[in-house]
Amino acid sequence: MTPTKLTVASLRKVSLLEGLDDVALGIILKQLTVRRYEKRDIILQKGATDGELLFLLAGQLHVVDYTLQGKEVFLHVIQPGDYFGELSVIDGAPRSASIVAIKESVVAFLSKRHALNLFYNYPSVIERLLIRFAQVIRQASGRQMLLSIPSAHARVYVMLARMVRSPDLHAETSTVTLENVPTQQEIAGMVNTTRETVSRAMQTLVKEGIIKRDKRKIVVLQPEVLEERAMHGEGSLVKETEE
Amino acid sequence: MTPTKLTVASLRKVSLLEGLDDVALGIILKQLTVRRYEKRDIILQKGATDGELLFLLAGQLHVVDYTLQGKEVFLHVIQPGDYFGELSVIDGAPRSASIVAIKESVVAFLSKRHALNLFYNYPSVIERLLIRFAQVIRQASGRQMLLSIPSAHARVYVMLARMVRSPDLHAETSTVTLENVPTQQEIAGMVNTTRETVSRAMQTLVKEGIIKRDKRKIVVLQPEVLEERAMHGEGSLVKETEE
Repeated sequence: MTPTKLTVASLRKVSLLEGLDDVALGIILKQLTVRRYEKRDIILQKGATDGELLFLLAGQLHVVDYTLQGKEVFLHVIQPGDYFGELSVIDGAPRSASIVAIKESVVAFLSKRHALNLFYNYPSVIERLLIRFAQVIRQASGRQMLLSIPSAHARVYVMLARMVRSPDLHAETSTVTLENVPTQQEIAGMVNTTRETVSRAMQTLVKEGIIKRDKRKIVVLQPEVLEERAMHGEGSLVKETEE
Repeated sequence: MTPTKLTVASLRKVSLLEGLDDVALGIILKQLTVRRYEKRDIILQKGATDGELLFLLAGQLHVVDYTLQGKEVFLHVIQPGDYFGELSVIDGAPRSASIVAIKESVVAFLSKRHALNLFYNYPSVIERLLIRFAQVIRQASGRQMLLSIPSAHARVYVMLARMVRSPDLHAETSTVTLENVPTQQEIAGMVNTTRETVSRAMQTLVKEGIIKRDKRKIVVLQPEVLEERAMHGEGSLVKETEE
């Protein structure tokens, strides 16, 4: 990776700052500190109390949490242009999760004081922040429903069925093509299972002619059948592992 | 329930409006519509697109979602003084869950336009809103960890252990008293199991002398042993139901 000179142009790629003019971006530029990370470096440690706002300028990060026994649990992916760490800026509480680089990454840091100024001085920023929070909360409720399904295969089916149901897809034909599908490892994290189980669940669907795979694309050949499988899964909520 | 005359004084009990003076409260008062509900009435229907902001003035509500097969899934409780429905005000998307009265309740409604004015015109309101969102998101990550534990008994232990770990409790003695513990039905909803399973898990702890129960209070006699049980539960994350 060649060294990045941080410019107003590079800030325009940050989703939170999209509504700002060059004057505002110029002010923020001077307040930022840029750091580079290698793969597997830890950017934020759960429990830390620094309170800075962070922007991912290049690379890719994973938000992870740990069980009491130290097992890593994947929460979600951070992509270039995303901001993160805003919870501690707002409530002053320690970091709720850790963030690790999964490839070489460039991160910009904004101090808590400057971040609060950014939130409260620019209406377009606060609006974006609120909309993002609303989305995160909606996703979290959806995920709670998902994780309440005892069968891991059924969770994979439900996740795929939800992608098909997405309002972004205007399915006029009987097949639906899902682009930029998360990797099996990422899906495994989202539905709380192993990559191997995701792979087996997908293989089942391929064998039965319900889906067809092509790199990061999935062609859903029989959306109704997938939906049926998912319904079967969501219906199995009462099955319960007991000690 | 005697009819409530809505006054500035009754608005002071609404958490979102705490920082506002009587002039501001007087303006909001005139914008509100008050409705009463009987037990089991539906206040909001999942998928509705009304976009109003709601305040619970009296009673108690449950936020619930439904599986595709119509099974009700409890999400959380709304208490008097709480506001709700803010997600649709912000992102304009349909209601993500339904809300039902679990006793006679009084709800005040603020139109989307007035709610947005409230958010953007009063810094104390936006600050409270952001802090609340931050809390909801933190709780959701915690719940995601919780629901990833396959054993229902272990989930109950982990939830109790988390209450013991709460920073509000300054445990100087070896026993910890938890006040206003959620009902078994509410705990069942939070950890996604049945009330009967919660009851059995609690009974196990009582029999072993780890906790003692007294109405809505729980005295944790052996917090370290409870913590051990919880750790055992969180460690069992790799057990997985497969088809």
